[in-house]
Amino acid sequence: MALPTRVKIVEVSPRDGLQNEKAFVPTEIKVELVDRLSAAGFPNVEAASFVSPKWVPQMADGADVMGRIARRPGTIYSVLTPNMKGFEGALAARADEIVIFGAASEAFSQKNINCSIAESIARFEPVVAAAKEAGLRVRGSISCALGCPYQGEVPVEAVLDVARRYDALGCDEIDVADTIGVGTPRRVREVMSAVTAIIDPARISGHFHDTYGQALANILAALETGVPIYHASVAGLGGCPYAKGATGNVATEDVLYMLRGLDIDTGIDFDAVVDIGQWMAANLERKGSSRAGNAIAAKRAA
Amino acid sequence: MALPTRVKIVEVSPRDGLQNEKAFVPTEIKVELVDRLSAAGFPNVEAASFVSPKWVPQMADGADVMGRIARRPGTIYSVLTPNMKGFEGALAARADEIVIFGAASEAFSQKNINCSIAESIARFEPVVAAAKEAGLRVRGSISCALGCPYQGEVPVEAVLDVARRYDALGCDEIDVADTIGVGTPRRVREVMSAVTAIIDPARISGHFHDTYGQALANILAALETGVPIYHASVAGLGGCPYAKGATGNVATEDVLYMLRGLDIDTGIDFDAVVDIGQWMAANLERKGSSRAGNAIAAKRAA
Repeated sequence: MALPTRVKIVEVSPRDGLQNEKAFVPTEIKVELVDRLSAAGFPNVEAASFVSPKWVPQMADGADVMGRIARRPGTIYSVLTPNMKGFEGALAARADEIVIFGAASEAFSQKNINCSIAESIARFEPVVAAAKEAGLRVRGSISCALGCPYQGEVPVEAVLDVARRYDALGCDEIDVADTIGVGTPRRVREVMSAVTAIIDPARISGHFHDTYGQALANILAALETGVPIYHASVAGLGGCPYAKGATGNVATEDVLYMLRGLDIDTGIDFDAVVDIGQWMAANLERKGSSRAGNAIAAKRAA
Repeated sequence: MALPTRVKIVEVSPRDGLQNEKAFVPTEIKVELVDRLSAAGFPNVEAASFVSPKWVPQMADGADVMGRIARRPGTIYSVLTPNMKGFEGALAARADEIVIFGAASEAFSQKNINCSIAESIARFEPVVAAAKEAGLRVRGSISCALGCPYQGEVPVEAVLDVARRYDALGCDEIDVADTIGVGTPRRVREVMSAVTAIIDPARISGHFHDTYGQALANILAALETGVPIYHASVAGLGGCPYAKGATGNVATEDVLYMLRGLDIDTGIDFDAVVDIGQWMAANLERKGSSRAGNAIAAKRAA
């Protein structure tokens, strides 16, 4: 099928990219990151997480970050909310969108939150209802949609089941996440074709990790099913808790490079993104994992 | 179109992967690399280069390497031959295939070898004739087929022109090389569709570099045009002389991971390749750039 002519990139580095960083990233760096991203034209930035600081100490300053960023009109600032308490924090912080999450893998759900998939999503009912009541957008994330670190294969039907539950709750966007980066293009096409057959493709996003180097090929396969929203992280920030030292989220620079070559519009300033990726990697005292970003930086330095 | 069900992987790490390494890699390591690759099931290994040691000191021991490897029946051992002298070395070394090369970019040809594309290919005429006479296979490589560091865009017609010249010379295989890794899937599809329209696709190979992270997506696009041969390098060995510190050849591990997911057979032992990549990167005292290789190694170590 014809590829979408315009794609929305959700930049997740401030949340998904940073949450596993061991050393605390100063609040002012997080604020600058979010502000530089919105200034570069990202229509949606995943800015913070309202989880317990005991679970994720790196995200403890979410309210502070949200309070200090320069809101750019038209940019959607999303925050992760695991429960009602998180939602109240998100509301007070004037988030535009909340993100809820459940796995398509029963083993993952049991192991991580000690309840079934169905129970985990039912718990979000009051959160979503309150968010809709308050006029916030809601995104439901389906983790382990392409594979699970515990059970391995994940049936397409399990992904569809979570998608239907999110749809019934009233989620605006549903993201199909390859949390551990194990997917390959054929499977991505199968899963995305199945999901877009039951939910309007305009509401579906793909969240790919580059753990096994497959992310861009997987995005290409997903584009061919009509999926028009993708998550990415500058400099490929965000590792994989299931394979220490492996790459994490697909690098935004690499995605933008491909989309530009495919003549797909994103409205994002590519050169600014390369700068942000190099700046942020330097802040973390490492080389980022974006190949396009590093190649362009190397050419600039030559 | 339906993807090929079987793909041939040409492993190029001993030549293209190592040729730009500054520190001389000991001959016994090169021999072990070639032998481990053939034992892992690669049907074709680019084993050496018969160029002047003044140009490429790393490849000075090509005759020695070829003399010491354990020939595996059925494996094609290829060597690069820039001229008649190189061919004589290749013949004496009992190479199965010689590789000749020319650019699809006039600017690149002028800058690198100080002659036109047409002249550069005409110079290979006696080499190819002698190779065919001696019963050797010949591969013609079209460099800069997806873009050029000097002139930028390269017209499809220029790629076709080189392909026709190679075909007229009698080349068995013609490889379309994205020497600087700038290609993206749409352009790859355009170029490969054009080439496979004038030459039997069974004789076409794709040689992709991962400089901008696009290689796997490009291979996926090329597979969709029916191209059944790909070049790859374990641990992504081989950098980019035009962007220092950038990634080079696509990593074999990442390619094999994708092909396995696509149910495409290669006859190659994937686990052995992961081992070879980790071993070779350790020899070079660095972390290899295969994402799949590093993720699997990390999981094994956990």
